[in-house]
Amino acid sequence: MVKITYKAVVYRKIPDEYPLPGEHLVVESKELDENLNENELITRNLYFSLDPYLRNRMKPSKGFKADYTSRYEIGKTIDNYSVGEVIASKNPKYPVGAVVVGFLGLEEYTRVPANQSLKIIEGARESKLPLSYHVGALGMPGITAYGSLLDIGQPKAGETIYVSAASGAVGQLVGQIAKRLGLRVIGSAGSDEKVEFLLKDLKFDAAFNHKKGSILESLRAAAPEGIDIYYENVGGEALDAALEVLKHHGRIIVSGMITSYNSNAPYGYKNLINIVSKRLKIEGFISDDFSAETQTKFENDVSSWLLNRVIVFKEDVTVGLENAPEAFLGLYQGKNFGKAVVKIADL
Amino acid sequence: MVKITYKAVVYRKIPDEYPLPGEHLVVESKELDENLNENELITRNLYFSLDPYLRNRMKPSKGFKADYTSRYEIGKTIDNYSVGEVIASKNPKYPVGAVVVGFLGLEEYTRVPANQSLKIIEGARESKLPLSYHVGALGMPGITAYGSLLDIGQPKAGETIYVSAASGAVGQLVGQIAKRLGLRVIGSAGSDEKVEFLLKDLKFDAAFNHKKGSILESLRAAAPEGIDIYYENVGGEALDAALEVLKHHGRIIVSGMITSYNSNAPYGYKNLINIVSKRLKIEGFISDDFSAETQTKFENDVSSWLLNRVIVFKEDVTVGLENAPEAFLGLYQGKNFGKAVVKIADL
Repeated sequence: MVKITYKAVVYRKIPDEYPLPGEHLVVESKELDENLNENELITRNLYFSLDPYLRNRMKPSKGFKADYTSRYEIGKTIDNYSVGEVIASKNPKYPVGAVVVGFLGLEEYTRVPANQSLKIIEGARESKLPLSYHVGALGMPGITAYGSLLDIGQPKAGETIYVSAASGAVGQLVGQIAKRLGLRVIGSAGSDEKVEFLLKDLKFDAAFNHKKGSILESLRAAAPEGIDIYYENVGGEALDAALEVLKHHGRIIVSGMITSYNSNAPYGYKNLINIVSKRLKIEGFISDDFSAETQTKFENDVSSWLLNRVIVFKEDVTVGLENAPEAFLGLYQGKNFGKAVVKIADL
Repeated sequence: MVKITYKAVVYRKIPDEYPLPGEHLVVESKELDENLNENELITRNLYFSLDPYLRNRMKPSKGFKADYTSRYEIGKTIDNYSVGEVIASKNPKYPVGAVVVGFLGLEEYTRVPANQSLKIIEGARESKLPLSYHVGALGMPGITAYGSLLDIGQPKAGETIYVSAASGAVGQLVGQIAKRLGLRVIGSAGSDEKVEFLLKDLKFDAAFNHKKGSILESLRAAAPEGIDIYYENVGGEALDAALEVLKHHGRIIVSGMITSYNSNAPYGYKNLINIVSKRLKIEGFISDDFSAETQTKFENDVSSWLLNRVIVFKEDVTVGLENAPEAFLGLYQGKNFGKAVVKIADL
């Protein structure tokens, strides 16, 4: 029997700061073991999602149960939300030919353990929407944006929301959903091109380049009356500015703090005291927290909005597994423009 | 007609750091104008409450509506929750002889404007509880502790709570109420004497001196399994340690951040990212936010607990108006041991 050789991105070393291609994440060759046990299967992988939170899976373990995702293991292929096609199966739930979304490796083929759940994408071959959306607008970033804005943010028409990293996977959805709900939407991003995208394509009411001048001044100019909700993706200067500009009873939805992921340096916050004086509410969550009801509503709403072009979803697709480590690094340097995804193969 | 001369503590200068007696707060003589208009009255003041939040009323205005209390005006007497006796009145709601609690000046006599509300303390002359409790356990610090612990903290028996500034006005009540609700209570305070008070008098389960060693290590040792609720009075190192030790779905009740009141220096937080990974909820409030129902329940519960000695309430009474500025400064140096109050006169 001929062994299939395939490429995989292996985690080789814990990074101190940025995760570097060839040092921390290394493309290696592996051999596929096709002898399946009961309920095991093999996927041919199509799309792999690059999400900022993955950097946290490369931090040294503190030995707490409190880590919400297991750390990556040195010497193993990294995994995340992916789309794949079942090409061999001893699991009757996932027959050969099924297109699935779930946790798969950043590799050409994954041998999926017997106890792992996947979700079959119904009508995957006929869909008018890109398959990659299942790890984007229709996947984890989608439910993150939709669930947290509605459940935690409690947005009301006429309110003002500020979204940081607003052209990113989650930010672009939050802003567009907030617009649909009648909010005034302000976004920030890291280049003039991204700012133009926010204003022209996503129809934000105001937007600014966070790399030009002070965020506090830009935010004040964009929201002279203050903001009601801050959608937090970055931390640091943006959070401190938002704390200053939030109105009484303002809410901060904490989706991520990308500025802290590659650095252990503390950020000097001046305005946390405003939590008291303005009676602010700050809440973190992860995408698994939302109810089945919210999940169903999300899937119906967002897929119909995308099909009817009521909202748009910008992706930044890196083609080829061998380019994945560079694209992963780029995520923390703000190089991606839209949802970052690696295309490994066509269906 | 002979004019009455009286002493008042006047706000003379905006402090950069600590509010200094004789420089920012100055004891001066004033003359009482006894010609009352319709609905005005005069109180002879008995007790004045010294609360950490008052320092915020000495900050330069940022010009926002967002400041939750009006700033003190240069040249005017400072005011706060006080107990006084009505000695002259053209307001039928508050007859001469009534003992009242409300916003009065830090002075011997206050001329109360026609539109100001006060609350009459029924049975004040017969009460078994000290009158000063009406600006302490039965007043703003009391509802602060009771309302926020119950409404925001959502405490459950068997959970663990950490209270900073635990021998202070709010902290000592929070800890004792939490004990009554079946929580494990950990407190920190700034001297060994205060720590002993927490353990022996208030029956906390664990307590430590935050000035000895690292707060994070002390807290970990006191709560090896982690904490469910952090009751925040101080900010800075204690908050960063709590963020590290909180369990998933932990809550932070933000009552104050006294370490930030006298300094504009930012504090370098390392652990805010835990808001996401642990799905924390952080909420600020002020004492006016609680419902009438919570207010009534608070008054009934806390007064009966105090009368039945189920809980204790430690006060730090400074006698004499002329000593008030020094006691006010001491509040930010951790010199008070218990609820700080100035006794101006006997009933």
